[in-house]
Amino acid sequence: MQPPEEPVMDVAHLGHVELLTPRPEESLRFFVEVMGMTESGRKGDSVYLRGWDDYERHSLQLTASRSSGLGHAAFRTRSPQALERRLAALRAAGNDVEPHEGELGHGTGWRFRDPDGHLFELYYETEWYEAPPALRPALKNQAQRFPGRGINVRRLDHFNCLAVDVRACRRFFESTLGFRCTERIELDSGEEAGMWLTATNKSYDFAFTKEAHGVPGRFHHVTFALDSREAILQAADIFLEHGVHIETGPHKHAVQQTFFLYVYEPGGNRVELANAGARLVLAPDWRTITWTEEERRKGQAWGLKTIESFHTHGTPPLPPNHD
Amino acid sequence: MQPPEEPVMDVAHLGHVELLTPRPEESLRFFVEVMGMTESGRKGDSVYLRGWDDYERHSLQLTASRSSGLGHAAFRTRSPQALERRLAALRAAGNDVEPHEGELGHGTGWRFRDPDGHLFELYYETEWYEAPPALRPALKNQAQRFPGRGINVRRLDHFNCLAVDVRACRRFFESTLGFRCTERIELDSGEEAGMWLTATNKSYDFAFTKEAHGVPGRFHHVTFALDSREAILQAADIFLEHGVHIETGPHKHAVQQTFFLYVYEPGGNRVELANAGARLVLAPDWRTITWTEEERRKGQAWGLKTIESFHTHGTPPLPPNHD
Amino acid sequence: MQPPEEPVMDVAHLGHVELLTPRPEESLRFFVEVMGMTESGRKGDSVYLRGWDDYERHSLQLTASRSSGLGHAAFRTRSPQALERRLAALRAAGNDVEPHEGELGHGTGWRFRDPDGHLFELYYETEWYEAPPALRPALKNQAQRFPGRGINVRRLDHFNCLAVDVRACRRFFESTLGFRCTERIELDSGEEAGMWLTATNKSYDFAFTKEAHGVPGRFHHVTFALDSREAILQAADIFLEHGVHIETGPHKHAVQQTFFLYVYEPGGNRVELANAGARLVLAPDWRTITWTEEERRKGQAWGLKTIESFHTHGTPPLPPNHD
Amino acid sequence: MQPPEEPVMDVAHLGHVELLTPRPEESLRFFVEVMGMTESGRKGDSVYLRGWDDYERHSLQLTASRSSGLGHAAFRTRSPQALERRLAALRAAGNDVEPHEGELGHGTGWRFRDPDGHLFELYYETEWYEAPPALRPALKNQAQRFPGRGINVRRLDHFNCLAVDVRACRRFFESTLGFRCTERIELDSGEEAGMWLTATNKSYDFAFTKEAHGVPGRFHHVTFALDSREAILQAADIFLEHGVHIETGPHKHAVQQTFFLYVYEPGGNRVELANAGARLVLAPDWRTITWTEEERRKGQAWGLKTIESFHTHGTPPLPPNHD
Repeated sequence: MQPPEEPVMDVAHLGHVELLTPRPEESLRFFVEVMGMTESGRKGDSVYLRGWDDYERHSLQLTASRSSGLGHAAFRTRSPQALERRLAALRAAGNDVEPHEGELGHGTGWRFRDPDGHLFELYYETEWYEAPPALRPALKNQAQRFPGRGINVRRLDHFNCLAVDVRACRRFFESTLGFRCTERIELDSGEEAGMWLTATNKSYDFAFTKEAHGVPGRFHHVTFALDSREAILQAADIFLEHGVHIETGPHKHAVQQTFFLYVYEPGGNRVELANAGARLVLAPDWRTITWTEEERRKGQAWGLKTIESFHTHGTPPLPPNHD
Repeated sequence: MQPPEEPVMDVAHLGHVELLTPRPEESLRFFVEVMGMTESGRKGDSVYLRGWDDYERHSLQLTASRSSGLGHAAFRTRSPQALERRLAALRAAGNDVEPHEGELGHGTGWRFRDPDGHLFELYYETEWYEAPPALRPALKNQAQRFPGRGINVRRLDHFNCLAVDVRACRRFFESTLGFRCTERIELDSGEEAGMWLTATNKSYDFAFTKEAHGVPGRFHHVTFALDSREAILQAADIFLEHGVHIETGPHKHAVQQTFFLYVYEPGGNRVELANAGARLVLAPDWRTITWTEEERRKGQAWGLKTIESFHTHGTPPLPPNHD
Repeated sequence: MQPPEEPVMDVAHLGHVELLTPRPEESLRFFVEVMGMTESGRKGDSVYLRGWDDYERHSLQLTASRSSGLGHAAFRTRSPQALERRLAALRAAGNDVEPHEGELGHGTGWRFRDPDGHLFELYYETEWYEAPPALRPALKNQAQRFPGRGINVRRLDHFNCLAVDVRACRRFFESTLGFRCTERIELDSGEEAGMWLTATNKSYDFAFTKEAHGVPGRFHHVTFALDSREAILQAADIFLEHGVHIETGPHKHAVQQTFFLYVYEPGGNRVELANAGARLVLAPDWRTITWTEEERRKGQAWGLKTIESFHTHGTPPLPPNHD
Repeated sequence: MQPPEEPVMDVAHLGHVELLTPRPEESLRFFVEVMGMTESGRKGDSVYLRGWDDYERHSLQLTASRSSGLGHAAFRTRSPQALERRLAALRAAGNDVEPHEGELGHGTGWRFRDPDGHLFELYYETEWYEAPPALRPALKNQAQRFPGRGINVRRLDHFNCLAVDVRACRRFFESTLGFRCTERIELDSGEEAGMWLTATNKSYDFAFTKEAHGVPGRFHHVTFALDSREAILQAADIFLEHGVHIETGPHKHAVQQTFFLYVYEPGGNRVELANAGARLVLAPDWRTITWTEEERRKGQAWGLKTIESFHTHGTPPLPPNHD
């Protein structure tokens, strides 16, 4: 018998996410004062931000824009050779891949679009964060001093895009980049309504869920990790005190069992807090969990019904007069 | 310039640890009643046990023996091809590698010894745990029902061996199996006193620390993961109620920042509880942290002095009349 | 100026609650196996149960009955003299107060009814719990060994009755027993929709909320305390695994800021878990917080809408054909 | 049989503690930036501070002084009449009680000294904290907005004095003020080495432990409450980042089972963090727990040996040349 094909291990991890915001100053204040992130650079219309445990210079790029949504999301490869292999695979599958220069924090970003039109980037060369004296940690195995400000997010965890054709997007990321699907939702119609992909031992590095309005390229949320569920409960109080709109949570997803809390940042983008890493997928041959429509009707793990706006709110907002 | 050599990604994760115990019944009761593990098989002198989130049939093999210590530790490879490559690398470096058959839960285990004489095993074929009806979980993306008994350990996390020559052991695992060293301790004399190796995004899958008595092949501890630090504090109370000897903790290590609690199981082996996964190493080119003798003199992260027995107690115990 | 009247300090604390259940065996299994309570006696149709930190013999009396609901709730007075004073005050206000003998765990219980018809009891003489050898704690300042089984509820915290006339009930408990109202809800109509009373430094020992169906004497829930919010999150998973119906939560109440989780026990009675004691009312002259209808429309602290059944489900169930 | 004497319920709770500091600016920065307290007034050499859940204007008075130590500690009575009764009882027992005017936040403070010479104060009239607009909380049943800065201490919890004759001090507070002793330590010699007193449902409002050097009037520590043990673990990291000396902990006391963490503030006074209120003493006739010398030799609850400085460090420091 033929042994199974070997897993491709070329993508190392999610590196950063660029969010577009029509209210850049308010968004920046939100990420610094409420989320407890640290500004690590500015260039053009962008401010670069990081959690205290992110090892690279930044994990969030906040870019002033006419509307909200995803600028791009970037994955770091495991090696220069791995980068070359993935670029070749993308091109072999007929994708345009263009070099992008001039961002802070990393070398050439090779950019391409997924079947739904979202912009992605692969890179290898990166800048390790060097904390200035005032932000140096007490323990040398930590990237930056724990801030003790607001919610103190630890690191970027994952993001979630909306897509008109979720299955096509999954196949794109599986076949060109070697992502593995740990969980997915398949409707009774056979349509794929959600998929969670990983390149690491985290049970997902990003997800795509069904766009209900037929508009491609929209964004659902970006997620930052905290150390404990207790820290997420504390965060809910801090959001409350700051008048931040809490959409839903804290509660536990059935899918992936993530302990979650969703809010909207001032620019309109949905931001999630989640518990860092309790659940790891260690099996190299993990068997994809497929949830049925009936199973998903039960709501979240402890019975909370999924809030309606979770299926409708994305960024940028729908165009006027859109149904 | 030559690009750096690509990382070897052939080992997927730590699979199981075999502990030897001269008090098999008491040890079994400890792991089932106090630790909250589940028995998943018996064969010969061994009982096979698992945490509720371990995906394979077992993660702990408890074997009746004349003394205590490590039976063997086993790593699962990422694929059959990866297994072949690692066996070839071991042999190319002059190691004896022998097939071992007949254990529950997995296919052929290929066994070899590290430079200090500990017994290791590589395997790929494995048995996924199938929970019997009474132990089926409510959520289908979970291996087994949460037990609600004692400490409810989630999964095997790592183990720690003592070695007379730590550096030689590190080089052995790096060069033959592709493990990456995330942190290490180097004494002023240049001797290596500790090293932490990983094949995953966990910041270590096992560690070796200095054997102070010149006796090869001894074992320091095995560690199981819980979901939160609060769960580890609760575990301390449960150990207290069961009269289990708490050696040190709960506290936070400076090295690796692990939140720890150490006890001795009835067979004499040291067992640790640690917090699952808050700290992940995502960088594919992580830069090894080297701690100096002076830095380590500061004790643990929050100032606790490392307890003396931590440097002396290992299993099996030292031979009589040994200094 | 006349000094204010001195507070009456005669009631020491809530002692126990008697729940009626039409499914006594299933209810008992729920409280022992899932809630982690300990049986401490049986008499007639009743089983007596306790949390590991309750100092009296029992805090819950579970009584087989044709339907569900509250049997009675009992308060312990601060002294024999305090008991006499309160009985005199009850009688002076025209209430029937009858001695009740023969229950396990305490001396004469003096029984009376509130304006809505619920049965209450005052007592002073009580039996301190003496743990049998197998349940003796490691620390002598603890009533009983921590069980390490299921949810491990710590102690009885409070209960909540429904009442047709909440204001009349509040005035009854304030004037005859000296309870202090820490928070209340007043509708735009002037009607009182909820009130929270305390005799201790806990911010409430019991509550009454509006009966929406005009049926007197019904019961809303009984609450047991856990040590942390993390323990309540863990409890949600344990309920999930046992197929226990989770009605709502975990979430944080705006009123009293209680972190809550509501389930139904097999007999139909609503049971709540709450976080022990983070919020204390230390002010002897605490100023009652009055919530308006508009404020309550905002839902719970973090925005969760109060679930409809919370306003309708009580025990015993409404009579057939009742609107 | 004569019924037992009724408990005196005249003291409502610990109101505030005045700390003396020779480094007032650094101490202030510690309490505001690291501990997350809020300044609520200044007068003379004092700055007044509060935790976000303290209902009075302040709970900590920080006073510039030549040395460190306790300025005074103040208890609020339950009523004006209760105040009169306690002043009469103090005077009847031969104590000088003098009115003290002019402090921020409360009416006349009636001051007296305990047998060891520490200065205490009783008062009833007080000023409820009114948060300025920027510090108003989202929930109206909360005194002040949650700060989201540093350690975010919730409220004053208790304090601990050293005394040459602990037993004499206990009897003084029991007989004149009606405090109840929940736990105590009695050495084999019959000497009392520690005692924990309460006027509330907290298991202690203050403690006295043995002064090992024969110097009267010294101070051991003041304690602030946090909401969870997880918050105390987080606080340890924040102390670490700020270079604050951690003396011992986090760990759990056997006595009172308090989860503790001790540091020194810049003025030299020991400050403790503890978990708010999980353990309540509800029994009005609580039976004092007496620990023996042998029992205390076992160290803290989970086995940590009590650190030597815990028995020697007090404030002010011992005079020069003192043994």
